[in-house]
Amino acid sequence: MIAHAIPTIHIEYTTGSGRLDSWEIEYRRKTPTSQRLFQRSAELHVNGVSHNIRYFDPYPFVTRSARGSQLVDVDGNGYTDYWMGHWSLILGHHHPDVEDALRHQISQGWMYGTLNEQALALSEAISSAIPAAERIRYVASGTEAAMYAVRLARAATGRRIIAKVEGGWHGYASDLLKTVNWPFDQPESTGTLPNDHIISIPYNDLPTSTQILDRYGSSLAGVLIEPLLGGGGGIPADADYLRGIRERVHHHGGLFMLDEIVTGFRLDYGCMHMRMGLEPDMVLLGKVVGGGMPMGAICGRRDIMENLNTSQMSRTLRCYVGGGTFSANPASMAAGLATLDALKKNPTIYVEINKMGDTLRSRIGRILDGVATITGSGSLFMTHFLRDGISDINNASQAAMCDQDALRLYHMHLLGHENIFLLPCKMGSISAAHTAVDMQRMSNATEQFVAATANR
Amino acid sequence: MIAHAIPTIHIEYTTGSGRLDSWEIEYRRKTPTSQRLFQRSAELHVNGVSHNIRYFDPYPFVTRSARGSQLVDVDGNGYTDYWMGHWSLILGHHHPDVEDALRHQISQGWMYGTLNEQALALSEAISSAIPAAERIRYVASGTEAAMYAVRLARAATGRRIIAKVEGGWHGYASDLLKTVNWPFDQPESTGTLPNDHIISIPYNDLPTSTQILDRYGSSLAGVLIEPLLGGGGGIPADADYLRGIRERVHHHGGLFMLDEIVTGFRLDYGCMHMRMGLEPDMVLLGKVVGGGMPMGAICGRRDIMENLNTSQMSRTLRCYVGGGTFSANPASMAAGLATLDALKKNPTIYVEINKMGDTLRSRIGRILDGVATITGSGSLFMTHFLRDGISDINNASQAAMCDQDALRLYHMHLLGHENIFLLPCKMGSISAAHTAVDMQRMSNATEQFVAATANR
Repeated sequence: MIAHAIPTIHIEYTTGSGRLDSWEIEYRRKTPTSQRLFQRSAELHVNGVSHNIRYFDPYPFVTRSARGSQLVDVDGNGYTDYWMGHWSLILGHHHPDVEDALRHQISQGWMYGTLNEQALALSEAISSAIPAAERIRYVASGTEAAMYAVRLARAATGRRIIAKVEGGWHGYASDLLKTVNWPFDQPESTGTLPNDHIISIPYNDLPTSTQILDRYGSSLAGVLIEPLLGGGGGIPADADYLRGIRERVHHHGGLFMLDEIVTGFRLDYGCMHMRMGLEPDMVLLGKVVGGGMPMGAICGRRDIMENLNTSQMSRTLRCYVGGGTFSANPASMAAGLATLDALKKNPTIYVEINKMGDTLRSRIGRILDGVATITGSGSLFMTHFLRDGISDINNASQAAMCDQDALRLYHMHLLGHENIFLLPCKMGSISAAHTAVDMQRMSNATEQFVAATANR
Repeated sequence: MIAHAIPTIHIEYTTGSGRLDSWEIEYRRKTPTSQRLFQRSAELHVNGVSHNIRYFDPYPFVTRSARGSQLVDVDGNGYTDYWMGHWSLILGHHHPDVEDALRHQISQGWMYGTLNEQALALSEAISSAIPAAERIRYVASGTEAAMYAVRLARAATGRRIIAKVEGGWHGYASDLLKTVNWPFDQPESTGTLPNDHIISIPYNDLPTSTQILDRYGSSLAGVLIEPLLGGGGGIPADADYLRGIRERVHHHGGLFMLDEIVTGFRLDYGCMHMRMGLEPDMVLLGKVVGGGMPMGAICGRRDIMENLNTSQMSRTLRCYVGGGTFSANPASMAAGLATLDALKKNPTIYVEINKMGDTLRSRIGRILDGVATITGSGSLFMTHFLRDGISDINNASQAAMCDQDALRLYHMHLLGHENIFLLPCKMGSISAAHTAVDMQRMSNATEQFVAATANR
């Protein structure tokens, strides 16, 4: 630990002639094939990518294979990966159990278009682990799951207003594309219709949130919240905050819905709300429960979910949601089931990855003491370079006001100089394939970053 | 051919004591394990399924494996499958080339979360085949693709009104959930907000459609149409209708968008609009181009697609769409690419499956002459039992007014008695794994259906 050197650190991040240049040069030097392929990709894809956040300057590398904690790019560079498939791969890339399940499934066919045993087995596993998941519907993505949850909450209550938190990210569906990025009073996108039926409450601020919810009272269909802001900065909710929100929304007759797409089966074999002793009316799952294969899931109380029954309900009563062509496809189901099986069989996985997370957060926190704060929980971690008088990160506004350029510099140092990959400026996640040596490498790399930037 | 016997046919479909009962009994008798599993599934999934249409009376069978033209259920029954993974599997189930590609991809990892070569190669294949696909963005499903196309059209034009056709099905996204099912003046779902910015035009009726479009004129952001109504009855659009709509929407400065999720690479190696000499501004793809793996794609003109560029456009100018975690995942990309490669290498596939479609439509049409009309095109076919003075099927209203109970009876006969599976009341599709013998079996089965119902 060289934490003693830190208080004097000054992060130099000018793009003109600073450290960023030299780390970018290192990155460019080792990724000529990626650069060439990216140029071709930019001829066919907007900004060269299919997901906005996958682009970063000067260009993203192109992956050829992935195994354990490693991504290998088309130039043969290996990177220790903390992006881990948008945080979906808790077992690491290419876990042998999941691979076996996928291989077996593919030998039987990958798209039945009908009911299959894999979906049933996965639902039995999810439902046994999560009491709130009395009924489950599989969809193709988390975006779809959140869109349908909003529709279902409105159908179940006969009301319209959905509350979300500022900085809450529930995918790109039109129904929830509001107050995602700071400043929260600006529209997120062109091409969307005004949506006065989504309201926002400040994260981890119960008095103000309560005031806002009370204002809508009997119009409130429900609240949708991540118990740990994923895209919004890796910030856990206070259990008291969630408890208070739940009490308040129930008081008004609305539904308490949790988006656990990131946190479900991430911190232990279950959901984050269970650790907090909270019973949600609906829970959204995805990522880990799909084993890295495409999938989202809407889970919830039986009576609420029954609104989706198109066979037993007339058109004027039914809530009409997907499904979709790929819902409950056996390949995604098999990958999810193999992942949950492996996690259940090896409960020490959670102990270990959570311990690695603690280690990482505390070491990096000490190295960057006074300069950055590390948020997260369990195997999730996010670095925030402090500025503008921000000393603590409890909500997405505080996270957004941190120094993004310094974070980009840090992540480019890791990528260019250290072959450690976090999607620039995003939260990282640790998998069962990571080791104590990886944690040590990350702290060493952070120390070197400090030394390099402090020395200037 | 026993077509001479037909004009006297009377379809008996009472559920009380008619033929349906006996075919249902046959079905129940051979599917006890499916019934047991379905009961368990119904404990965990609304109506036992994850996609509304996958439920049918008395209960859907549970698939254990799929190969070529066959689905095999958990009781060991083999069914000749014409549902073919929601029409996505043009090569049949478990095609060896696609299996190899998937196996190889899985050996390299299935979720990179980064740029990959598979997406680039697939886009090069799509773009070479479809000139309108100047830029491509991959998403997780067709539902997502349609939702984002609407947003993008609004962003690109700065307007709000989107026109769709009555009976047009573009997935479950809130933005397009209107006038899907007949009667078209009723809401499709509870829990949705009123949406006056979607308007509907009657399919294959150019004068009325033009009048409606003219009414909205300079508010019109675009029109989204399937060139063959998929869910709406397997009804091809007249080329002149589409040409007229395109001219009219362009006259008003809106965009002409085609949903070719069903028809893309289905009738030949390209899109249906190319056969009609039509240039769309945007095209949606899915199903076939994903090889049965989860995927949707928004393709379009470069200048329009550039609105999605979040790196180069400020927040107030950008159109913010996914992507998503699973966008361009290498497994879906590899399956799609292998499918397109196989289709390109074997151009006779289209000749053969289209010829089988022609054979089937004409044979079944003759057998059911005066009783039913068979719509479809190429390898797609749909049977409509006529009633209420309907003699021709040109739009979704006419399709909806046909005799659904007779169709259910016919499909239950095929399933229960003949081990031929079409998702009850839905369009069928023929794959490269089907043969002339399958076509013969289908006509024979239809003749037996006629004999059984006419004899009563």
